[in-house]
Order: sequence, then structure tokens, then C-alpha cells
Amino acid sequence: MVLKTSSNAQNAPKYVKVPTGYLMVLRQGDNVFSELEKFAEKEKIPSANLSGMGFVNAEFGFFNFKTKEYEPKKFKDVELASMSGSIAWKEGKPSLHCHGTVTGKDFKAYGGHLLAATVSTGSLEIIITVHDKQLERVTEQPLGANVLQLKD
Amino acid sequence: MVLKTSSNAQNAPKYVKVPTGYLMVLRQGDNVFSELEKFAEKEKIPSANLSGMGFVNAEFGFFNFKTKEYEPKKFKDVELASMSGSIAWKEGKPSLHCHGTVTGKDFKAYGGHLLAATVSTGSLEIIITVHDKQLERVTEQPLGANVLQLKD
Amino acid sequence: MVLKTSSNAQNAPKYVKVPTGYLMVLRQGDNVFSELEKFAEKEKIPSANLSGMGFVNAEFGFFNFKTKEYEPKKFKDVELASMSGSIAWKEGKPSLHCHGTVTGKDFKAYGGHLLAATVSTGSLEIIITVHDKQLERVTEQPLGANVLQLKD
Repeated sequence: MVLKTSSNAQNAPKYVKVPTGYLMVLRQGDNVFSELEKFAEKEKIPSANLSGMGFVNAEFGFFNFKTKEYEPKKFKDVELASMSGSIAWKEGKPSLHCHGTVTGKDFKAYGGHLLAATVSTGSLEIIITVHDKQLERVTEQPLGANVLQLKD
Repeated sequence: MVLKTSSNAQNAPKYVKVPTGYLMVLRQGDNVFSELEKFAEKEKIPSANLSGMGFVNAEFGFFNFKTKEYEPKKFKDVELASMSGSIAWKEGKPSLHCHGTVTGKDFKAYGGHLLAATVSTGSLEIIITVHDKQLERVTEQPLGANVLQLKD
Repeated sequence: MVLKTSSNAQNAPKYVKVPTGYLMVLRQGDNVFSELEKFAEKEKIPSANLSGMGFVNAEFGFFNFKTKEYEPKKFKDVELASMSGSIAWKEGKPSLHCHGTVTGKDFKAYGGHLLAATVSTGSLEIIITVHDKQLERVTEQPLGANVLQLKD
């Protein structure tokens, strides 16, 4: 088998348009949240949902409703078995909300609310379904939860 | 930072139309299955697939093929790391089938077939992709499995 | 309740067209990857993303980047809590890439990169979102990772 060199990787666009939105492919070292934010700004995405899978370093946080802070934990070199998320806006900037599950050598799954992720030794494929409505997130009280606001 | 009050939450619609279907946002106390059933009836959804994530109380059941019953287990105040499901019809009523994974403070994932879920201290976002075909579920023998029926 | 016999199952098509792509329903004994490959060839799918859930026997593999081989593990009679994947092409043949999570009686989740799966005592529903671009996978060096190639 002739293996192509990774020079493909250097020239490849990070995303392409498809009928329902965009398909994104990230590679080793890419910061997942930064790339999605750059994408949202450049393509002026009103709002979107996304689904992904790949091989990543991920940080999850479990929200403590007393302290209103996330208690974080990092996982290195893991399969991203699932990722579900949405893109909206908050105070003029893209606002991401992503959940996921990851697995290592023992196949045990961990996950929850994704705080950060970078692509590890492999790639990450994300399918982004774009909506036509400009949507915002607002921190709602008393929960302190960051909630996607729908409007008629 | 000025925090808006949750009065937003009171007036917000539970779902809005998007090009591929609907986007639903539920809040604390909402019963996930009831809201999806009400939605399916009101909007006369022929059939649909859905994907969700949020913060919930969830009950999963593992189907025992000998007793034909689900052995249930409840999880309280957990991240819904993933939810995948479909909406069809059975004997004139909406028939939901949803799977999911949940995680708590230790980030360990649990899941399977969702029997019930309510939104906990946070929200639940669901993207619903609507199909144009009226689809039914039928309990097929000898397995006793409730199967989505496709037809030409 | 009158239960219909599983003769429905014999005559049912394995997939139907929907506005965003196709909806597939597989049954006991069906080989998931073979059915998706047959589908991709017959319907000449340029590329697609998919999401699924059901009841399966699954084999996962964790990629060892030193040996460039997958270390596999099988799970029998488990709920497929989530499945995310994509269909592209490689050397003239369909090239699938699927991740998933599975759960058994104790609801603990396991998963990662799916090497193989067959439907167990139940069914498997897969929603396939079809794209308009013909996409290929290429093994990129030095990682040896099989990466979906986007092009402008």
C-alpha cells in the first residue's frame, strides 16, 4: 500500500459546505472550541447544532450549583465516542455548548459537559447543522445556567 | 455582569422551526417525553429523529428478553452527555424511542434505553430532524421488540 | 393487544429516503457495516454522516499508535446508547468510520471506535445525512490515521 504523506493535511480546508450546513475535519493540535468559534464568526452562523467524533485530549467539567463553578477533569489521548453541541451567540461572541463521551484503552466511557478539547493523534469530524434563526444564550437566575433562548 | 432574570424562561416558546425540523429547549421540571409527545401531536410530525444534551434526572431500563420487561435504574442531577432518539406513531399516539448516556460528578458514563427524563437544574436542548413519511412502530414477535416500520 | 407477527420484518425495506438523506432500520442478525456499505454502493452516496441507536453485539478497538493496530474488545447483547459515524470512499470502496457507546444490565457505558457490529435481539435505527460532495479517506503519515479529506 502506498501511503500518501500528510502534506494533504497542510492544504486541506478545515470545513466545507454541505446541504444541511458544514462538515468540519480537524487534525492533531487543533483547538476544537477555537476552530468552531472562528468558523461561526467567519461564516456568520446564526445558530447551529453539531455532532462529532474523533481522537482528542478533553477536559470535562461538572457544574456545582452551589459554587456556580465547574469541577474539571482532563482526559488525554482518548477516543471521542460522541460529541453533541450547539452554537449560538452571547454578547456579540460565539457561545458554544458541547457535551461528549470519551473512552481509553479499557473502553470505559467518561464524559459530560466539555470545557475544552484539542485533537490528539488522529482527527475529529464534526457535522454542523445550520439554522436560520439568530439565537442567543443568557445566564438565567436563580440557577446560573447558560440557556439557549428561543423566540417566536 | 448584569444577569437577566429567569422571566425570559417563562415566556420562551419550547421549540422553534428550523430548516431541517425543530429546535427544542426545555427547562427545569419539564418532562422530556411528555413535551416531545405534545410537540409531535401539535405539529403533526410524520416521523423524526432527534439528538439532545442537557442536565436531567433520567431513568434507564435494560430490556430482559425473558420477562419482556425493562429493569429500571434512576440517575438524579446528571449531565445528559448524549441523547439519540426517534419519533413515530403507534395506535394513533406518538411513539418515542430514545437512548442516552449520563454522567455525574465522577464523570463516569451510564446509559442505555431511556424510560423517562425530566430536566434538572439547567436546560435540555434537542434538535429534531423531521421526515416526510408517516411511520409506525409495531411490536414484532418472537422478540417482543418495538420496531420502527419502514415501507416503500 | 394484538401483536403482529414478524412477517413485517421479512418484507420491510432496510432504508427509505427522507429529506435530509435516508432512514435505515436493521434487524436481528444484520451486519451493520455490511449493510451500510451495500447502501452506500447501491445509492451512490457521495459522503454522509450518520447517527444510530439500537441493540447490538459490538466490537470496539483502541488504536495503538506504536503498533498501528487496534486492540479489540467485544460486547454481547448491549444497548447501543449512541453511534456517530461517517461514510466516505477509499480506493473505490465505501469507507466507514463509526464511534459508539454501549451499555449492559448494569448501565455502565463502554465504547470508542467501532470495528464491527451486528444487530442482536431488537433493532437498530440509523439516520443518515447525505452530503453532495464526493469525499475520500486517506491514511495520513506519520500518524497512520485514516482521515477524511475535505477539498475546496
